[in-house]
Amino acid sequence: MSRQLRQERTVVNVGGVPIGGEHWIVMAGPCSVESREQLLATARAVRDAGGSILRGGAYKPRTSPYDFQGLGVEALQLLREAREETGLPIVTEVMSTEDVDLVSDYADMLQVGARNMQNFPLLRRLARAEKPILLKRSPSATVKEWLLAAEYLLSGGNANVVLCERGIKTFESELRNTFDLAAIALAKELTHLPVIADPSHGTGRRSVIPAMSRAAIAAGADGVMVEVHPCPERALSDGPQSLDLKAFAQLMEELDRPERTRARATVKV
Amino acid sequence: MSRQLRQERTVVNVGGVPIGGEHWIVMAGPCSVESREQLLATARAVRDAGGSILRGGAYKPRTSPYDFQGLGVEALQLLREAREETGLPIVTEVMSTEDVDLVSDYADMLQVGARNMQNFPLLRRLARAEKPILLKRSPSATVKEWLLAAEYLLSGGNANVVLCERGIKTFESELRNTFDLAAIALAKELTHLPVIADPSHGTGRRSVIPAMSRAAIAAGADGVMVEVHPCPERALSDGPQSLDLKAFAQLMEELDRPERTRARATVKV
Amino acid sequence: MSRQLRQERTVVNVGGVPIGGEHWIVMAGPCSVESREQLLATARAVRDAGGSILRGGAYKPRTSPYDFQGLGVEALQLLREAREETGLPIVTEVMSTEDVDLVSDYADMLQVGARNMQNFPLLRRLARAEKPILLKRSPSATVKEWLLAAEYLLSGGNANVVLCERGIKTFESELRNTFDLAAIALAKELTHLPVIADPSHGTGRRSVIPAMSRAAIAAGADGVMVEVHPCPERALSDGPQSLDLKAFAQLMEELDRPERTRARATVKV
Amino acid sequence: MSRQLRQERTVVNVGGVPIGGEHWIVMAGPCSVESREQLLATARAVRDAGGSILRGGAYKPRTSPYDFQGLGVEALQLLREAREETGLPIVTEVMSTEDVDLVSDYADMLQVGARNMQNFPLLRRLARAEKPILLKRSPSATVKEWLLAAEYLLSGGNANVVLCERGIKTFESELRNTFDLAAIALAKELTHLPVIADPSHGTGRRSVIPAMSRAAIAAGADGVMVEVHPCPERALSDGPQSLDLKAFAQLMEELDRPERTRARATVKV
Repeated sequence: MSRQLRQERTVVNVGGVPIGGEHWIVMAGPCSVESREQLLATARAVRDAGGSILRGGAYKPRTSPYDFQGLGVEALQLLREAREETGLPIVTEVMSTEDVDLVSDYADMLQVGARNMQNFPLLRRLARAEKPILLKRSPSATVKEWLLAAEYLLSGGNANVVLCERGIKTFESELRNTFDLAAIALAKELTHLPVIADPSHGTGRRSVIPAMSRAAIAAGADGVMVEVHPCPERALSDGPQSLDLKAFAQLMEELDRPERTRARATVKV
Repeated sequence: MSRQLRQERTVVNVGGVPIGGEHWIVMAGPCSVESREQLLATARAVRDAGGSILRGGAYKPRTSPYDFQGLGVEALQLLREAREETGLPIVTEVMSTEDVDLVSDYADMLQVGARNMQNFPLLRRLARAEKPILLKRSPSATVKEWLLAAEYLLSGGNANVVLCERGIKTFESELRNTFDLAAIALAKELTHLPVIADPSHGTGRRSVIPAMSRAAIAAGADGVMVEVHPCPERALSDGPQSLDLKAFAQLMEELDRPERTRARATVKV
Repeated sequence: MSRQLRQERTVVNVGGVPIGGEHWIVMAGPCSVESREQLLATARAVRDAGGSILRGGAYKPRTSPYDFQGLGVEALQLLREAREETGLPIVTEVMSTEDVDLVSDYADMLQVGARNMQNFPLLRRLARAEKPILLKRSPSATVKEWLLAAEYLLSGGNANVVLCERGIKTFESELRNTFDLAAIALAKELTHLPVIADPSHGTGRRSVIPAMSRAAIAAGADGVMVEVHPCPERALSDGPQSLDLKAFAQLMEELDRPERTRARATVKV
Repeated sequence: MSRQLRQERTVVNVGGVPIGGEHWIVMAGPCSVESREQLLATARAVRDAGGSILRGGAYKPRTSPYDFQGLGVEALQLLREAREETGLPIVTEVMSTEDVDLVSDYADMLQVGARNMQNFPLLRRLARAEKPILLKRSPSATVKEWLLAAEYLLSGGNANVVLCERGIKTFESELRNTFDLAAIALAKELTHLPVIADPSHGTGRRSVIPAMSRAAIAAGADGVMVEVHPCPERALSDGPQSLDLKAFAQLMEELDRPERTRARATVKV
């Protein structure tokens, strides 16, 4: 993945949407696919506000075995329906080697979740998949470990890899994770791969997501991935970090207007 | 420092330069004052490029007793001379209660270094100083601990406090620290105090400082503090994270043009 | 796994060796199985010095795809041969759901490596395995996350789970990880499961392994797991943290003599 | 402080009690001196149970300016009275250069608190003090930074330095800090200075302090420092990590009986 070996930046095509080129893009959608209504309402709102790719979890890696584990195939079918209605390509997580073929049938991009960044059998299997991969950084991975995980995909035959920074574990406990934006700048310096940012997991706090989305794009990210839910307080997972449909539309409008950022002071008092 | 007690944002006046108002500002200068030539050349370059405040260390807190410890009073006199020549107000670190009066005679703003964020006798003394305070976050402080350190200053009588994020210690070792931009957004949400960002210490790597400066302003920072040196490879401290005079001028030009940031993709391939 | 639900401590039987009872045990062996000679020489030394279980990696999770990835089935066959010759039960890592049946044929205990602690499909599959499980703590897992990973195994039907602390990722860089002995005491307080300690990965430094082994047993660990290699400087993985055969024998002798620990001072100078 | 320069281990004499020699010692007492009754009752219990040195805070560094800040000189006078009655030497923290002479008049050993480990003016002043120094590790200091802080004392003229490990800040949040016992073994390998362990701050949880005290001694610590209070639930600071007088006596009895530690398993089931 090193830029020393390949100067030209990789552009990854996800169902017609290029990631890593001249423009940045937005992926958005619910943490988990919970129902037809929830998903379609979100998908339409994502498209209308200018989002390019729909995210939504079918298989959910959960810390506790007693938490909601995702709708599985039913969710995949709903994601397909949402794509048919809105035209948005789909990105969703695949958690095990056995599911790779199935999920590939439905999704335009396969996500490797943060907990699986060093699941090497899964990486080896995805190296032979037909679809592009979104490789999330583990919350405990150094940038070097993250890039070497990408190398499992590239050296195994899949050149369509997009990196995703989503926060690391630190002593700071006010926010869910510490969002490591310098890792985005560093990854873009060291590799030719596109890099996107996930401020929803990166912070876990709705109120700072607009600021962190702006910051990610300013830092050079090729896109942002944002969790959106029609009714965050009723979400089965990640409610506190999800934007509602209106807040997402406001975010999109704001991201399109960097010139409204305040200016440098030029005169003294 | 809570915004629940005071809705209106504090604007701190540093020798005529307001921090925390409608505009953002740039503080820049060498890590350590090393010589008259070094300081004056840097000061002129900072002013010419649009910097508002000159930084420079007279008393240096160093991990090893065998490292360069700063020029002390001689450095303070050179800083005064640089202010006279360029008109830039001065910010410099004060490390001990005994030095507060002396440093106040020369500087427009007194910096509490990261290692002293919980030096409570020093905070109590600075609460009675006449000058505004730049309170750096300790690399191991939670946001809450940082804000409570500010509370020592405010409750002791000094309302002119500017917070400065400069990176925290984490397992990631590729960069010197993990630059915590979400802490800036959070601190601005929780307090009425201005917050600035120090990408030089926050990353320790020259190549990512422009991206992180842009990101800090996009995240809502009221300013950035950047280390600049006429000849970084010969600096007595912090060379690898210092910009040379030309790179600093380029950075300033770039920060003034947010509209040049690339745009969102709007069409499919 | 909570002790609130089950007061009695679990004792796990690994090929005739009880873990979690009145006595502590030692698992030892090479990081990777590299050759017949290497493995058999190590196995005999482990048995002769008083070790109870032989460890050895057949499938190696490696950060880089270009590093040695283990001998696979060939290693499993060598481990079986070593058991036949020495009588020592075998523990080895299984990395993917597809390998569970195969590895179960050869091993007496299946290890979940630190990177797979939250590989939930693997945990669900191992919950239906016939063999006891050694669940290593992820270097970024809180104690709570570690215990919930064990809960995937217990709630899925496998009651024979042994926890293993092996160091966590922190800012400290002198040692490979920060060995969290308090987590052992805490895990034993909160659960009824046996807990062992791996000072080899926990520190990464040969010279401190004896002190950390003693400390782990003093902290209440039900055993220690130590990497041993006939010639550490030629090991294909983890050489700097491996003991040679003689150092291992010395360690075992020392661990058997806690009364030789120096005593408290009782008189003044 | 390097052992490469001085092979012989340093033994520090604290009011007649040697630290770093053939035996280990125990320092104990309340976090804060709160009253005459509290201190004297604790001091007698510490002496009767076999403790060698009395600790107690007169000046308390507190995160919030609104928390109890210590009784100051009144506490120093009570500490002197406790020494006169029990014969125990006194260790107490000094927070500022201005207080060094005053505290030296009362205490047998001056403690540098964790937050002041890199308060270089304080270290320089203590290098010229007549009393031995207890240098606590900062919760964010690498072992190397800790040893270089000691070097400020040694190179400045005070050879009587005892290091104290008291836990570091990590992502783990179940316990107050992560108690880094390997740092003790490493510090003893790299330096000739005595090293003690503070499991009270190291864990913040009463229930694991006995296990961690045993582990610290097994790891080679020259002593342990434990917080004791006649009535922990009414303590003005650090109650949850303080032992009551009876629990302290039990701890001491247990530490004196390492041979009661359970033994290695020698036979199979």
